[in-house]
Amino acid sequence: MAESYDAVDVIRAKRDRGELTDGQIDWVIDAYTRGVVADEQMSALAMAVLLNGMNRREIARWTAAMIASGERMDFSSLSRPTADKHSTGGVGDKITLPLAPLVAACGVAVPQLSGRGLGHTGGTLDKLESVPGWRASLSNAEMMRQLEDVGAVICAAGEGLAPADRKLYALRDVTGTVEAIPLIASSIMSKKIAEGTGALVLDVKVGSGAFMKSYDDARELASTMVALGTDAGVRTVALLTGMSTPLGLTAGNGLEVRESVEVLSGGGPADVVSLTVALAREMLAAAGVDGVDPADKLRDGSAMDVWRRMIAAQGGDPSAALPVAPETHDVAAPSSGVLTRLDALAVGVAAWRLGAGRARKEDPVSAVAGVQLHAKPGDAVQAGQPVMTLHAEDPARFARALEALEDAVEIGESAGATEPLILDRIAG
Amino acid sequence: MAESYDAVDVIRAKRDRGELTDGQIDWVIDAYTRGVVADEQMSALAMAVLLNGMNRREIARWTAAMIASGERMDFSSLSRPTADKHSTGGVGDKITLPLAPLVAACGVAVPQLSGRGLGHTGGTLDKLESVPGWRASLSNAEMMRQLEDVGAVICAAGEGLAPADRKLYALRDVTGTVEAIPLIASSIMSKKIAEGTGALVLDVKVGSGAFMKSYDDARELASTMVALGTDAGVRTVALLTGMSTPLGLTAGNGLEVRESVEVLSGGGPADVVSLTVALAREMLAAAGVDGVDPADKLRDGSAMDVWRRMIAAQGGDPSAALPVAPETHDVAAPSSGVLTRLDALAVGVAAWRLGAGRARKEDPVSAVAGVQLHAKPGDAVQAGQPVMTLHAEDPARFARALEALEDAVEIGESAGATEPLILDRIAG
Repeated sequence: MAESYDAVDVIRAKRDRGELTDGQIDWVIDAYTRGVVADEQMSALAMAVLLNGMNRREIARWTAAMIASGERMDFSSLSRPTADKHSTGGVGDKITLPLAPLVAACGVAVPQLSGRGLGHTGGTLDKLESVPGWRASLSNAEMMRQLEDVGAVICAAGEGLAPADRKLYALRDVTGTVEAIPLIASSIMSKKIAEGTGALVLDVKVGSGAFMKSYDDARELASTMVALGTDAGVRTVALLTGMSTPLGLTAGNGLEVRESVEVLSGGGPADVVSLTVALAREMLAAAGVDGVDPADKLRDGSAMDVWRRMIAAQGGDPSAALPVAPETHDVAAPSSGVLTRLDALAVGVAAWRLGAGRARKEDPVSAVAGVQLHAKPGDAVQAGQPVMTLHAEDPARFARALEALEDAVEIGESAGATEPLILDRIAG
Repeated sequence: MAESYDAVDVIRAKRDRGELTDGQIDWVIDAYTRGVVADEQMSALAMAVLLNGMNRREIARWTAAMIASGERMDFSSLSRPTADKHSTGGVGDKITLPLAPLVAACGVAVPQLSGRGLGHTGGTLDKLESVPGWRASLSNAEMMRQLEDVGAVICAAGEGLAPADRKLYALRDVTGTVEAIPLIASSIMSKKIAEGTGALVLDVKVGSGAFMKSYDDARELASTMVALGTDAGVRTVALLTGMSTPLGLTAGNGLEVRESVEVLSGGGPADVVSLTVALAREMLAAAGVDGVDPADKLRDGSAMDVWRRMIAAQGGDPSAALPVAPETHDVAAPSSGVLTRLDALAVGVAAWRLGAGRARKEDPVSAVAGVQLHAKPGDAVQAGQPVMTLHAEDPARFARALEALEDAVEIGESAGATEPLILDRIAG
């Protein structure tokens, strides 16, 4: 960096509702990565950004500066186009598991760098680790080989991608500055752009179980990310999808792998199948592939075929039985009628408390814990019949999970209108 | 602390424009002092407080929590009442130096715990250290003895008073969170209340050379502090005084001591004498002493008498010659007319760059550097005559000081209205 700035001047500029210059942004991200700007200075700046915002130019520059803090990957030597998907996180959101092999079966390579869960939303790597033998860490060379041979890889992001984001994300987590749209957008997009995917489909969740509780916030986040991707030369599309009730019938690591395998076998819950196919179509279109219907690839077993090869390539046994919880507890419907509400956040917190999620990065997660649903909004239920089953390694976990579920279920006389799964689509 | 909280929850509450509970405030100040709440968490909270404010109850509790973080002093065993003065800081503000002995000469003890200068405003201790032999550090026992024997003490605040404020002030300084009225008010008042003074007069500066540039901000700060003091049982009054031009004719450590001695000798610039007497009258009234006119005590030499005993009690030689700068540089009036503006901030920055102030806490200051004024707003000046003289140890300092002064002086055809020195008075 040629020019040097003063950290307090940069903080004050944003605190006083000014715009940060390109030079200030480049300097503060680089200096923070090198430890010249201290954590307490960056957290004050992050709070000022959260409360006073950044404009499009500032967000784009902030993202570019985070990309420039590390290495960039390049998939241009692959024999097929690449497309990736990112979800902002929801309860029961196992879509990546069937989606990556499905898109690969359609001729597009999927380099899916994923994360672990924190809080009430699950992490893709945590889910796959319930498959015996499967490992999340690959070298860049292993990743490239698997993309060429199998067409799909789901693995942990290397340390070299956007290290500024890694450091900033950990800081935001402990300083109440996670919920800033400019910082969320630049965090997600810096990693995806540095990863080098040619096309990107964003699944931006809205509702009680999502980061974004309001439609307007979700739309702003989605259009910010689409603009960032498009400007960086990545063909980017976003779907806004509902997260007021869990996706599918399971929330929990091993439980969600089982449900994903059902989808790959041509079955599975309708909402999971429908969203998987919709996202696959968007990825194929963004990658420039047409004339292939992903729904066919679920029916004819070719997506399952890629799944098995993808799991095996990372040391997993796709035929192995998934572990099962030693303890279960049924939750009965309190009355007869139609299930009108099943709250995503409550189910997510319950699964988390049962052992499926972690409170701190270092915590282990259980492969078998989680919540299995027997009814979804719109379904008829009978008083006394189970609406869900809790799974845990230790029955002592049930009490606090049940507390979280206290107001999660509503039963009415008629179904009413159900929210559509896909609420909006935003393209560059 | 009985109850425990989560730092991120406390930060989020203020970030989302909520009120902090008494329990949250007690916990966060105590936990920060103990290192349980990290610097990066407190700086995010400070930025949220700066941008979203605190109400009167929150500020009072925050102040009480900072007082509770350390020891409290008690002057009730003294044979006379106590009164203290605090200035929010200005250019050429040497008022404490003549004021403390003057009020003591009127029968009220003055326990003046002072600080050092940072940035363009000077520090009282730095000024007094230009007196050969004088030392700023006293034990509590020495301080009590001097208050009883001499009636006035100006010394460094001990480490034990409001340690939470000490830590938070250093943090705010590097994180762009100094300019928050709730944090400024609680910082000043926690130390003054912990110090144990019975009465307190606040000199809240307004104008270019002050922290508070606007009258409304200064008034808000003043009334916040008066309410805090009053609620804590300290009789508190605030004067709002102008700081758009320097006080008196000197800015710089030794130069200001010399001017203070002139005032104690019955001379000195009219504005310094006038403000010193006005503040002395407020301190006497707040301490419940009437029938004494401080102006008499300047004329009859009794204030000078206390000054000499106060300096000598702390190892200083009140008869010693003050050091003089080896290098001086005159700044000439560019035209003839009436001086209409002499900017306080510019003079403060010039004095600072000449060596009178410090950029970082560890920096030494010069006893001789500073600015001497030969004219004040309203005075007639002749083209080519010096309007000020710069003093420094090294002539290399002059260039950057002159840069700061480039637009400091305005000369017009007639004087116009001059701002009154005392703009307002706020009582509990």
